[in-house]
Amino acid sequence: MVDNTDGKEVGPQTDRSSGVGAMWRPVTRSSTHELVIEAIEDQIMAGTLTVGDLLPSERELALRLQVSRSGVREAIRVLEGHGVLRSDVGSGRGAGTFVAALPSAALARFLRLHVALSNFRIQEVVEARIMLERASASLAAERADADALAEMERLLAIMDDPDVSREAFNDADTDFHVAIAAAGGNTLFSDMTGAIRSSLRAPILEAFTKVTNWDALASMLRTQHHEILEAIIQGQAERAGDLTAAHVREASAALPDLPDA
Amino acid sequence: MVDNTDGKEVGPQTDRSSGVGAMWRPVTRSSTHELVIEAIEDQIMAGTLTVGDLLPSERELALRLQVSRSGVREAIRVLEGHGVLRSDVGSGRGAGTFVAALPSAALARFLRLHVALSNFRIQEVVEARIMLERASASLAAERADADALAEMERLLAIMDDPDVSREAFNDADTDFHVAIAAAGGNTLFSDMTGAIRSSLRAPILEAFTKVTNWDALASMLRTQHHEILEAIIQGQAERAGDLTAAHVREASAALPDLPDA
Repeated sequence: MVDNTDGKEVGPQTDRSSGVGAMWRPVTRSSTHELVIEAIEDQIMAGTLTVGDLLPSERELALRLQVSRSGVREAIRVLEGHGVLRSDVGSGRGAGTFVAALPSAALARFLRLHVALSNFRIQEVVEARIMLERASASLAAERADADALAEMERLLAIMDDPDVSREAFNDADTDFHVAIAAAGGNTLFSDMTGAIRSSLRAPILEAFTKVTNWDALASMLRTQHHEILEAIIQGQAERAGDLTAAHVREASAALPDLPDA
Repeated sequence: MVDNTDGKEVGPQTDRSSGVGAMWRPVTRSSTHELVIEAIEDQIMAGTLTVGDLLPSERELALRLQVSRSGVREAIRVLEGHGVLRSDVGSGRGAGTFVAALPSAALARFLRLHVALSNFRIQEVVEARIMLERASASLAAERADADALAEMERLLAIMDDPDVSREAFNDADTDFHVAIAAAGGNTLFSDMTGAIRSSLRAPILEAFTKVTNWDALASMLRTQHHEILEAIIQGQAERAGDLTAAHVREASAALPDLPDA
């Protein structure tokens, strides 16, 4: 079998029975892998492919869909990039491409890149954070269990250390906000919160590094984090949401070096 | 140049100068394209690649990064899938791979697939819609211009037609909600709203098709849409948000065939 990686293959969407010249449009490699994506997407949407299912081999998919193996491989890479497929390398049992449920990392990379490209302004991202984290904190106040509260306390203790580095502070800060979102029990909220907060990790760390009154800023953040956790522990949903919204707003305002903020 | 599509190439992360066997870990094709993604991502995060920039050719990137052309091509496909790159086919000027700003379609496919795989429960998606669209409608009441209002009125007129098909109704309904989000002026909100609503297009259409009391449902949706638009026209931000939240909640409740709702 010729693995035509130069993209001159004729895809199944061309009408082979027609002699009319105008119906013969050039088939690009780009549309080949897109066709494979659509074929896989159709089966996912129809429910015939579900999480954990093993995809046919690259060779078999190429044969069945009448496209090049490189087109199949590119389609698989795109869907891996969406966290919808996972390829386990090696040979033997356990190797192959499986339908997966890995939305978080994919969403984080997506947002990180589009924030860096300024397709989303930092101010828009901060507004989205405020909205999401207000809702998440309220849900967490209603639903957080003992394990979730212990994890939040552990993260606050890291930030309370007077000798903590700005980078370690930023990491624990990110994890604290993600832990609140996770405790709320809505996976989409917590994935979006995690993705948005991690898309801001680099610009926030840069702003932390530049800030001259670090001690005052760290002190303000510590106080606000403890107030939020206290409201969550007390089950005060509305207060937890309001405190979180004010905290995100004030922290952003205190970081004037956040680009475009 | 050998286009090694079988993935046995040695990537730059192996230590060629070392004779220690333990340092030679197998380099999979999967890590090759991931390395290329990271190399491109680094330049985007550093701001050296911005929207509209032309990427070096596949051949040149492969040479510079010391990887196979297939690895480069797979990386480009993944970043196209994220809406971060765009390949214009053909030859001559205007052909090539450019840095792009196309987040909406990428986000819509991502959410559609993960909703179909039940990685996000419909109920979670509905909660996210309520939160997002409440905020969007309030912003729209403050910021919508005459063009945006005219577009919303046009979409309501389509749904007001007593002979409208359920499919055309669903399309105009989707577009109405996306138009409100766009009028609010926060691109991230409107992209997420569009993506979430379009991830629900198929299950909502299926529920529309199954519903026995369609006339009553359509009538309820029409009334609520007109109330929302009226609040936006009057600049009543809080009322527009509350009406929208109630509308999304009631419409979801009226569609018991929405899986998992």
